Amino acid sequence: MYRMPYGFGPSAGPRQGPDGRPFDWTNTPRKRSVAVSYLTDAALLRNLLPPGFSLADEPVVTIELQYFTELEWLAGRGYNTLGVKFPVTYRGTVDEVTGLFLAVLWENLADPILTGRDELGFAKLYAEIPEPRVFQGREFHGAAWLGHRFIDIELDAIEEASLAPLSGPAAGGTLHYKYVPATGQWGEADIAYACHTPPGASQQRTIGAFHAKGRVTIHDTQWADMPTQFHIVRALAALPILEARGAVITETRGGKDLSDQRRLT
Amino acid sequence: MYRMPYGFGPSAGPRQGPDGRPFDWTNTPRKRSVAVSYLTDAALLRNLLPPGFSLADEPVVTIELQYFTELEWLAGRGYNTLGVKFPVTYRGTVDEVTGLFLAVLWENLADPILTGRDELGFAKLYAEIPEPRVFQGREFHGAAWLGHRFIDIELDAIEEASLAPLSGPAAGGTLHYKYVPATGQWGEADIAYACHTPPGASQQRTIGAFHAKGRVTIHDTQWADMPTQFHIVRALAALPILEARGAVITETRGGKDLSDQRRLT
Amino acid sequence: MYRMPYGFGPSAGPRQGPDGRPFDWTNTPRKRSVAVSYLTDAALLRNLLPPGFSLADEPVVTIELQYFTELEWLAGRGYNTLGVKFPVTYRGTVDEVTGLFLAVLWENLADPILTGRDELGFAKLYAEIPEPRVFQGREFHGAAWLGHRFIDIELDAIEEASLAPLSGPAAGGTLHYKYVPATGQWGEADIAYACHTPPGASQQRTIGAFHAKGRVTIHDTQWADMPTQFHIVRALAALPILEARGAVITETRGGKDLSDQRRLT
Amino acid sequence: MYRMPYGFGPSAGPRQGPDGRPFDWTNTPRKRSVAVSYLTDAALLRNLLPPGFSLADEPVVTIELQYFTELEWLAGRGYNTLGVKFPVTYRGTVDEVTGLFLAVLWENLADPILTGRDELGFAKLYAEIPEPRVFQGREFHGAAWLGHRFIDIELDAIEEASLAPLSGPAAGGTLHYKYVPATGQWGEADIAYACHTPPGASQQRTIGAFHAKGRVTIHDTQWADMPTQFHIVRALAALPILEARGAVITETRGGKDLSDQRRLT
Repeated sequence: MYRMPYGFGPSAGPRQGPDGRPFDWTNTPRKRSVAVSYLTDAALLRNLLPPGFSLADEPVVTIELQYFTELEWLAGRGYNTLGVKFPVTYRGTVDEVTGLFLAVLWENLADPILTGRDELGFAKLYAEIPEPRVFQGREFHGAAWLGHRFIDIELDAIEEASLAPLSGPAAGGTLHYKYVPATGQWGEADIAYACHTPPGASQQRTIGAFHAKGRVTIHDTQWADMPTQFHIVRALAALPILEARGAVITETRGGKDLSDQRRLT
Repeated sequence: MYRMPYGFGPSAGPRQGPDGRPFDWTNTPRKRSVAVSYLTDAALLRNLLPPGFSLADEPVVTIELQYFTELEWLAGRGYNTLGVKFPVTYRGTVDEVTGLFLAVLWENLADPILTGRDELGFAKLYAEIPEPRVFQGREFHGAAWLGHRFIDIELDAIEEASLAPLSGPAAGGTLHYKYVPATGQWGEADIAYACHTPPGASQQRTIGAFHAKGRVTIHDTQWADMPTQFHIVRALAALPILEARGAVITETRGGKDLSDQRRLT
Repeated sequence: MYRMPYGFGPSAGPRQGPDGRPFDWTNTPRKRSVAVSYLTDAALLRNLLPPGFSLADEPVVTIELQYFTELEWLAGRGYNTLGVKFPVTYRGTVDEVTGLFLAVLWENLADPILTGRDELGFAKLYAEIPEPRVFQGREFHGAAWLGHRFIDIELDAIEEASLAPLSGPAAGGTLHYKYVPATGQWGEADIAYACHTPPGASQQRTIGAFHAKGRVTIHDTQWADMPTQFHIVRALAALPILEARGAVITETRGGKDLSDQRRLT
Repeated sequence: MYRMPYGFGPSAGPRQGPDGRPFDWTNTPRKRSVAVSYLTDAALLRNLLPPGFSLADEPVVTIELQYFTELEWLAGRGYNTLGVKFPVTYRGTVDEVTGLFLAVLWENLADPILTGRDELGFAKLYAEIPEPRVFQGREFHGAAWLGHRFIDIELDAIEEASLAPLSGPAAGGTLHYKYVPATGQWGEADIAYACHTPPGASQQRTIGAFHAKGRVTIHDTQWADMPTQFHIVRALAALPILEARGAVITETRGGKDLSDQRRLT
């Protein structure tokens, strides 16, 4: 598999090791996921949909942080992510899939951003996502861009829980819209299609699970604060939090390399 | 102009401000460029060429650092880059262009990496590129990835100079190979074409220029050191330095937004 | 000269090179200084005075950023500082000195913090002090601690100027209060005395000077934001800005090693 | 308790909260400690001893990394440390104590460096200490200063173990030499005395323990690489590794605030 820069030959990444072979996803990575959900306004959420997508089920936004360590494809390093998801149905000329749309995914390391955008069509961007502050039973998570803190996520009332299996749209996997503009023909696209991460086929297993109360605060963000991303933060900030839908913490081991990612037609 | 994430609407970047209008490139950015050149082996250099490209002129590699400040499109912030260039001719079905091929360009900020890869077809990757150490008339530049220093560039015998205008392939602009893999059809490409940054049309003006002696050292790099980039560093390390061709430092103000970037056919 | 850790022998630093000899301060470091001043309330300012100090002249606070590069004692590296100063007189049993009291000095590198605290009695603390944003004739400076931005300094109306020589308390050098607590005897001190950086004897020369309008904003800071420093930020935030007294930018080369620093009695 | 800057009043820290009261150390911090030991040359080790100290027991050096999270006094943040210890006896005019001498302790956050140096007499310095790489049953730890990696610590053959209680010098607590130079009287000291961290009185409890094989590599370090610390790294590099003495990993919760730290006489 090639990525830019092309001339140096195939690039190793999550789906191919230095020798071209896949990695072992049985016991690693370790992941701690913190997901906070809330009901929002359907009309505003609909504004964030790419072509072919419509809302499915309730307009519930989930903000999910993931703290990865022991990633084999990074030779045992880790990184952190912050994603925004909500339930949608994609209807193409052939495919119809209901799942969670990953509207944007911030990551604090450029290399998985590039593999994910180019190979998988994940809408990844860069942000600083520090380890959480954990203080007297509460957790304080968040993200920033060059020092501008644009989101805070606070958890309390954290209690061990047994998690129900995924149901509804969340059981349908994750949906994406891959888009790369055309060079020189400004306003046109070289790539513009939907992608699907099917559920299942992962070696991920849960080793800890907790329920909690979660609170999301999105901060005022001007163009000068985040000149390439302010419009995203402002659109998220404009989504009202109509009703809290709780938070879920999961600690897992194992995973998959997402080579089952597919283009939708 | 759109980039991923698509659903939030057009993304501001170097070629469009928050209101869609271009930026003013008359007096900014400021840039300090440090370029060290050396003669290498033509056969090894040829290995790094994408389809349609051949070597032009002598096989002279130039390693160029650029330290940008006061970039309007980043609301006055800056970032640093480290590029590898050599003279080539691209022959397509229609176009034939001779210029410098930008084989790889490391940058220390993700946002210009994404705009450059997606909009321009620049082969950008992430690296740490700290400010140089300047000590007793010598300068020490370099780059690292998560702490692994993979290149050192040292300058001495720095003297003010008046620079000759560009000639030969360097006068022909910069060439690139835009490549994005196809999702799900592993090994195939969604995008694979050459691009050209034509010379000229820039408001860049030189405010200082120096000649120097330069020394480039590329360090031993294993897969575990840079799991997504080691093959690039190793290929560069394999290029013998057959003859030093000197170093040039330029300090400039002004520039252009590269909206004259074009796809070659 | 020794510092902790003691057992490894003398430690190199600004005042002694690796061979024990002093450094050359003729042409380096380079420094860009940005100083914004304002009139505040004398009674509140008086609260910040250590024993033996009293206010002198008008209660004018100066917030000064310094951006250092090419420091010989750091082998050509640089670092940035943010200090708070105001005019005072120190009266000891022997000495009486009027100058500017350096109430606190944030720096973005630990090594000069340690040499400065231990050898000179400078009240140095750590903060992130990024390079300024420079945008359309305005400059945006500031500092943060682990992501919490606690001060913003904005300059506009920047114009070249010829600076008058220092007069009044500023001509008297800088005053400090060195304090190290006693181990085990909590609440008592091992060291508690005033220090003086005399003016002059520096090879610093000005290569550029500007006047500007400056605006200082100190942000709300709770204990959890800066658990070891919040009380300092809050005390500075409590000082009203009664009247702006302008800003001065100076660009200099050369300096001194402060080995003329002396203990006051 | 006061620290520099003095004028702003008492400074919060590990031993006093924002209201002056102590913190709760029952369940936090969490700590993961990785300690690798080896036999070295007694004569070379003796060179690192401050006045009043002599070697005790075998000349075994222990390099210990500590990864702290959930520190109450940092409002739930964490930091990492790398210390060098070996068994000594301190004989003063009154006290005689055998324990482990903490020759140097690198930390990756300035605030605990300052509280530890000033209040406790710990020989703390700054270094970058990233999270370890964990890959196929091996762990890769290390530290750097402004990008110069000066030590690598690698573990393998990691197996769960039940740890024996501390015995020998390690059971005697930790010894330190507090030293602060005199301002202006260069070469003389304001503070120069031994300190002792007695064992016990901690709420720390072990929640996981492992034995491993460990390998320490200390890298060539010139003055220009670490201008204030190179002599320390070089002295450590000069200690031969005569025999590996294994590695121990412990995971703990709880601790103490070290307010039982005392000055030796």
